Amino acid sequence: MISKKMEDFIANGSAIRAMFEEGKQMAAIYGAENVCDFSLGNPNLPPPDTIKKAILEVLDEEEPVELHGYMNNSGYEDVREKIARSLNDRFGTSFSQKNIVMTVGAAAGLNVAFKTLLNPGDEIMVFAPFFGEYKNYAISCEADIAVVPANIPSFQPDFESFEKMLNPKTKVVIVNTPNNPTGVVYTEETIIKLADILNKKQKEFNTDIYLVSDEPYRELVYGDIDVPYITKYYDNTIVVYSYSKSLSLAGERIGYLVIPEAVADFEKVSAGANMATRILGFVNAPSLMQKVVAKCLDSKVDIDFYDKNRQALYNGLTVIGYECTYPDGAFYLWVKTPIDDNEFVKMARKYQILLVPGTFFGCPGYIRIAYCISPKTIETALPKFEALMNEIKEKIKA
Amino acid sequence: MISKKMEDFIANGSAIRAMFEEGKQMAAIYGAENVCDFSLGNPNLPPPDTIKKAILEVLDEEEPVELHGYMNNSGYEDVREKIARSLNDRFGTSFSQKNIVMTVGAAAGLNVAFKTLLNPGDEIMVFAPFFGEYKNYAISCEADIAVVPANIPSFQPDFESFEKMLNPKTKVVIVNTPNNPTGVVYTEETIIKLADILNKKQKEFNTDIYLVSDEPYRELVYGDIDVPYITKYYDNTIVVYSYSKSLSLAGERIGYLVIPEAVADFEKVSAGANMATRILGFVNAPSLMQKVVAKCLDSKVDIDFYDKNRQALYNGLTVIGYECTYPDGAFYLWVKTPIDDNEFVKMARKYQILLVPGTFFGCPGYIRIAYCISPKTIETALPKFEALMNEIKEKIKA
Repeated sequence: MISKKMEDFIANGSAIRAMFEEGKQMAAIYGAENVCDFSLGNPNLPPPDTIKKAILEVLDEEEPVELHGYMNNSGYEDVREKIARSLNDRFGTSFSQKNIVMTVGAAAGLNVAFKTLLNPGDEIMVFAPFFGEYKNYAISCEADIAVVPANIPSFQPDFESFEKMLNPKTKVVIVNTPNNPTGVVYTEETIIKLADILNKKQKEFNTDIYLVSDEPYRELVYGDIDVPYITKYYDNTIVVYSYSKSLSLAGERIGYLVIPEAVADFEKVSAGANMATRILGFVNAPSLMQKVVAKCLDSKVDIDFYDKNRQALYNGLTVIGYECTYPDGAFYLWVKTPIDDNEFVKMARKYQILLVPGTFFGCPGYIRIAYCISPKTIETALPKFEALMNEIKEKIKA
Repeated sequence: MISKKMEDFIANGSAIRAMFEEGKQMAAIYGAENVCDFSLGNPNLPPPDTIKKAILEVLDEEEPVELHGYMNNSGYEDVREKIARSLNDRFGTSFSQKNIVMTVGAAAGLNVAFKTLLNPGDEIMVFAPFFGEYKNYAISCEADIAVVPANIPSFQPDFESFEKMLNPKTKVVIVNTPNNPTGVVYTEETIIKLADILNKKQKEFNTDIYLVSDEPYRELVYGDIDVPYITKYYDNTIVVYSYSKSLSLAGERIGYLVIPEAVADFEKVSAGANMATRILGFVNAPSLMQKVVAKCLDSKVDIDFYDKNRQALYNGLTVIGYECTYPDGAFYLWVKTPIDDNEFVKMARKYQILLVPGTFFGCPGYIRIAYCISPKTIETALPKFEALMNEIKEKIKA
């Protein structure tokens, strides 16, 4: 018999896995070119050329024992220093290597931060819609998730509910901007308001509330949209970063935490993150990739590709009659469903379209379309989405 | 305020960290060449040349989107299949890719296995001396650690105590052979006896007891010592493997679990390990390194180097009068201390020798010497160990 918690995880996780399996079966029946899989946020752009170049350079420059061996659990000091300086250059911050903890991607970064901060029964507050995996990470720390209802249609935070819901048990608030699944970017005004409320509530409750900024999509923004660097607005901010999307290195598991000296109990949080990295079994972020990303801090994937997909999907679906949230960042389109979202996802499968229901993100009545896919898939999908809309209209009439 | 558990971890973990810091300070005062740091199991041999070659080949052969992107949380199917076949060739097993889960090293593998199997209050049984980190992993699952006393001087398991201590709460038994810290390899006779007792107790309690075989040191054995492949002797065996030592890739965090179909509830354990890899925040083992190790399954580091260190240390210390366990594997020498082990470690520091006390491994009265270091360090250390022994003899006389 396996663990009871794990039994539940498997039962809950089976819906998305079932979708993958169904996708494979569909491809076998209808041909892969007719299946439109919009379910996974797996970048389909290659990493920039600088990555391969950097790997080759690192292999030539570094001493192999050092390159492939253990280092401080928080990562190589030189890598952390380079990342700190790059952040300082870009955002006017003043970090050094001691503010950076290299992590096995953002998923590891979140687990390290939660493990460091949370006692059983503490509360993590999230804004709907939110990345469903946060719930699983919370369960590992025996923390509770409190969900601030979605603010429709802007999907900026609902401040009224947020302020009411904050309580002395709230230890962590997560923001994720650019947002998965909506593609919304929080404005500077939003961040200032958020910080004001948090500061007020910290004072009122005499507690520390840590704002955990999960930002794997920071570099994926379109046009001249600005993504404010949150440590500058609120002292108790911990940034969780990943190169999965910006450098298309999702499989390599490489990212970092920023723990500014301004956070409450900095020394302990910092020592805790180092320790959590070790005892959660990560030990350290993959060593070669640490050295590689340090050489590619000014690179990113070809955003224009995602932008074209974004325009094609947004315009295509809007014309058909779908109500879409215009995404300023990330590679997801958030679409209102004219019927129940689970029902919609089920109907879409008949057209060989794979989607994730809003329910997974704590926000029913919507679906998420991941557009980190081939433009051809969008072309194939649009007539299918139209047929689906017509079928639904017929159904509603009947 | 950080989490209470983390406060404890930091307090307990500080002794070894303090040692590292002291090592640095010593190097500054006495010169790095005079400091003998035997504390860390960080391989000092470069990876075999095949590793760099394999990285270059993989970069040329694989499509970058596939190479650096997400795959099944359990790892690339082709990599898992190659590992399974290599095991079958070497050990006469009959695994396929579905029995292999790629992990972020052995530390991750252990966490994944524990998370999959253990409910709060379940018991993990270990044989003293044992790798201290198991305790921290157990705490994460709210499991209890039960320590079977050391069997001195063979350091094979104490079967009488083991049999008495097994109880209906025992869900996992860990074996680690070749052993850290003793260097002892369990004989085939030991494994057969272990399996007999476990089978008897499973029947008596009507429970499943999983034998978790933590074997990062499997390839590091000297002479013609045989390390039995445990899945062949006991059905409920899960193997935790890592390339950290065999290929000197400790920083790259790459290893795997073997979950044979013979284990109780195979389908659930397998699905659980896949899910645990995801929700613990590993997501998957680093992608490029998966492909690299799959090309290097027949490679290993230059064992002769460690063997020479082993002989030099064992012979050198024995002549001085230290009582050492002769190590058949791994790169540790386990030495009896004529006084309290913590006291011994403290005295050794005066001679600029850094050691880990047996207490850390649940076995006071011993120290561990990691000999994955330069032969020069051994040369420098031997006269220091002699002076230390003389000082202790004087002290005891007085």
